[in-house]
Amino acid sequence: MRIAVYPGSFDPVTRGHFDIIERASRLFDRLVVVVLVNPDKRPVFSAEERVLFIERITAGIENVEVDSFDGLLADYFKEKGATAVVKGLRAMSDFEYEFQMALINKQINPEMETLFLNTSGEYMYLSSSIVRQLASFGGDVSSFIPAEIRDEIVERLRKAGE
Amino acid sequence: MRIAVYPGSFDPVTRGHFDIIERASRLFDRLVVVVLVNPDKRPVFSAEERVLFIERITAGIENVEVDSFDGLLADYFKEKGATAVVKGLRAMSDFEYEFQMALINKQINPEMETLFLNTSGEYMYLSSSIVRQLASFGGDVSSFIPAEIRDEIVERLRKAGE
Amino acid sequence: MRIAVYPGSFDPVTRGHFDIIERASRLFDRLVVVVLVNPDKRPVFSAEERVLFIERITAGIENVEVDSFDGLLADYFKEKGATAVVKGLRAMSDFEYEFQMALINKQINPEMETLFLNTSGEYMYLSSSIVRQLASFGGDVSSFIPAEIRDEIVERLRKAGE
Amino acid sequence: MRIAVYPGSFDPVTRGHFDIIERASRLFDRLVVVVLVNPDKRPVFSAEERVLFIERITAGIENVEVDSFDGLLADYFKEKGATAVVKGLRAMSDFEYEFQMALINKQINPEMETLFLNTSGEYMYLSSSIVRQLASFGGDVSSFIPAEIRDEIVERLRKAGE
Amino acid sequence: MRIAVYPGSFDPVTRGHFDIIERASRLFDRLVVVVLVNPDKRPVFSAEERVLFIERITAGIENVEVDSFDGLLADYFKEKGATAVVKGLRAMSDFEYEFQMALINKQINPEMETLFLNTSGEYMYLSSSIVRQLASFGGDVSSFIPAEIRDEIVERLRKAGE
Amino acid sequence: MRIAVYPGSFDPVTRGHFDIIERASRLFDRLVVVVLVNPDKRPVFSAEERVLFIERITAGIENVEVDSFDGLLADYFKEKGATAVVKGLRAMSDFEYEFQMALINKQINPEMETLFLNTSGEYMYLSSSIVRQLASFGGDVSSFIPAEIRDEIVERLRKAGE
Repeated sequence: MRIAVYPGSFDPVTRGHFDIIERASRLFDRLVVVVLVNPDKRPVFSAEERVLFIERITAGIENVEVDSFDGLLADYFKEKGATAVVKGLRAMSDFEYEFQMALINKQINPEMETLFLNTSGEYMYLSSSIVRQLASFGGDVSSFIPAEIRDEIVERLRKAGE
Repeated sequence: MRIAVYPGSFDPVTRGHFDIIERASRLFDRLVVVVLVNPDKRPVFSAEERVLFIERITAGIENVEVDSFDGLLADYFKEKGATAVVKGLRAMSDFEYEFQMALINKQINPEMETLFLNTSGEYMYLSSSIVRQLASFGGDVSSFIPAEIRDEIVERLRKAGE
Repeated sequence: MRIAVYPGSFDPVTRGHFDIIERASRLFDRLVVVVLVNPDKRPVFSAEERVLFIERITAGIENVEVDSFDGLLADYFKEKGATAVVKGLRAMSDFEYEFQMALINKQINPEMETLFLNTSGEYMYLSSSIVRQLASFGGDVSSFIPAEIRDEIVERLRKAGE
Repeated sequence: MRIAVYPGSFDPVTRGHFDIIERASRLFDRLVVVVLVNPDKRPVFSAEERVLFIERITAGIENVEVDSFDGLLADYFKEKGATAVVKGLRAMSDFEYEFQMALINKQINPEMETLFLNTSGEYMYLSSSIVRQLASFGGDVSSFIPAEIRDEIVERLRKAGE
Repeated sequence: MRIAVYPGSFDPVTRGHFDIIERASRLFDRLVVVVLVNPDKRPVFSAEERVLFIERITAGIENVEVDSFDGLLADYFKEKGATAVVKGLRAMSDFEYEFQMALINKQINPEMETLFLNTSGEYMYLSSSIVRQLASFGGDVSSFIPAEIRDEIVERLRKAGE
Repeated sequence: MRIAVYPGSFDPVTRGHFDIIERASRLFDRLVVVVLVNPDKRPVFSAEERVLFIERITAGIENVEVDSFDGLLADYFKEKGATAVVKGLRAMSDFEYEFQMALINKQINPEMETLFLNTSGEYMYLSSSIVRQLASFGGDVSSFIPAEIRDEIVERLRKAGE
């Protein structure tokens, strides 16, 4: 069984992330979406909330599992017996950073392979931080969030911005 | 009447900004230079000061107006009845970020068009943050600031660095 | 009156080009789309055909004029009394080349200003050369060409590939 | 069964290509390396030779199959019942072109997913065209070619350069 | 006598830095590695420690001197009577920033020339911040640090992460 | 004695090249500008002419020598007993290609070090091919060519374009 790990902050999960999840789930027997907890950052949504949001939008995809992890991705990868890490690429600057991380992960664990998927054209501009930034100025972010969780996320971001 | 909006932090305004203002003012009936107030950043110069500095250096250009705004650019754009946003591009990294913002602004308001002007060769290295950084180490930044406001800005940056 | 010039090969014109034409036509009093004739290249469509195709798809936009030119863009710009050149940017590599051309044009004629518009997300992958390349392998390119001229262009490209 | 297609010119196949083949073969049930025949290019090695060279270096990897194709990759993909296309990325410029091709392939066939693997650090500089160019000047390219086929390829490139 | 200055944070010095030091030392009569003290950043290692670590790994290279400086690089350059600044480039994003700094330094002092060396393939992924980040999650960073100082640095980073 | 080699096509030599020659000549005991002869390209100026043009503009710089070579740069480098190759970088796309060549040259000869200088701001747009392209359309290229050789080069390019 081939397992892929899709790591990220998902603060909050966007339609761009969901597009990657849906496409990657067809390429592997199992896809584990893992919310990485970074102790140096202060997220708007707790790790538990982020896991719950992703679980709700992926309820219809059988081979997707959602998890959170507080540590080194290379350790999680090993623990899960994974075959590959999946990352979405939007732009050059993503590419450089992700490329660097892929090389260093391979140095740490030669079995750790990273696969890149390009973001679909319509989500190229989209990131969690842009969603948070827009929401903090009162902008309407509803079209960037999957329908199942839209209202709650928009509501929460509006409050966080006050 | 076609109105363009040129948004930025202008902390402080540089000769590179002035070059863009001068060139963009010839392309539209009216150019509004707008100091965007970002509550998360602590600028060296207050919004009022930044407006005054830009007003002084643009006193000779009839169709330029200076303003400040505390909110979402898309809202300001609508309020002003603007036709286009103008941005200067120096380098790749500018390009990626500005491209992303242009796409997301268009998603929010399909009427919101962004026009990019390339920075002139001699200002390619110039940014407000490099000016602040140099000044904080006691470097001479006078050649980067328009003549009309040079002394005051250099003086203020020197004090801020102490 | 402010006139903008939108130069290109348009061999053939795509929906991505049309998107730029439509958006740029709202920013200026007049937009001149000009087919540049490069004697070193052997186009699939003659300059006359390319002009006719662009005329057909822009018939509904009053302030657009279509032309062809065999010479230096800087000379055409002057002859037309234009205010700005308009270019669409898809990606980094476009940016570098166009940036270089904008700087050199400004060196030749300090009045020659270049304005960049970003390509809309859904046309980011699209170029005349990719359309020609796909068509030469028998690929279906009909979704990349404006509806009014689709059948003729697809037919012609199919024959050219034989 | 998940099948991936790894297309390329492979004129000639390098150790960088072999690195991608080896890594990609572990991610899918079957990997088809396909030599794409481009009628507009004049390769040094015929399609048959290129297939044979790849077969020899992949003899030890059970789930790899080698093929050649003269047509549109999207058609080959469908014919094979493939799940994904695999591409190696070395640098930015690769990324832009491959990204564009991935988006256009997805437009042609929404099932056609492209997966990118980054080139290993030690092969970042390596391409078939650099190998051919070096060989044409009498440079020693033996360290860039897999051992099993090195002598023949080096010999052939030396003759082609005369 | 031609003197080159190699500035950086070196927090901590990596094998990638050492590679640049070794190669640059052969190009000049004297190479001064200078730890720049940035009052806005809180380094893991003090300036004194960073100097000592670099001194230990460069003990075998006669024409290398190690120093620290709290101020503007352009001032240090002048004070030392240096001929050139040396910088290592890993990737595009390095390139943009370093290019900008080189242009601004030349503006401040026309004698101040910057020379770029590309990072060797095997260190392309390596940076002090990635080493610190990995170490903070308990990752094994020993292969990224020169042998002579490995144990101490690994030990210190482990404690800093607690 | 440290010798640097500055290779290129120089078809024709521009003020941008001269800027690199002048700056690089101060960094080494001797700078050899070498016109590389590429049998696959048809230059406007013969190798002999290109050497003569560079000799004329560098007559005032004592430690510069001009040469031409028909072969592999790595062989020329060895033959000359050189310490480093010097290259000018204008933009990203230069960077990628030159980086790749630097890595491959180092693989061929571990002693072969490449040093990059950034192009000065005012020559960022300048290349021999843009000069040739402009001249072929009758554009005025006189400001891009060193004064000593301007008339002859402009005259020759005009004739070549007829």
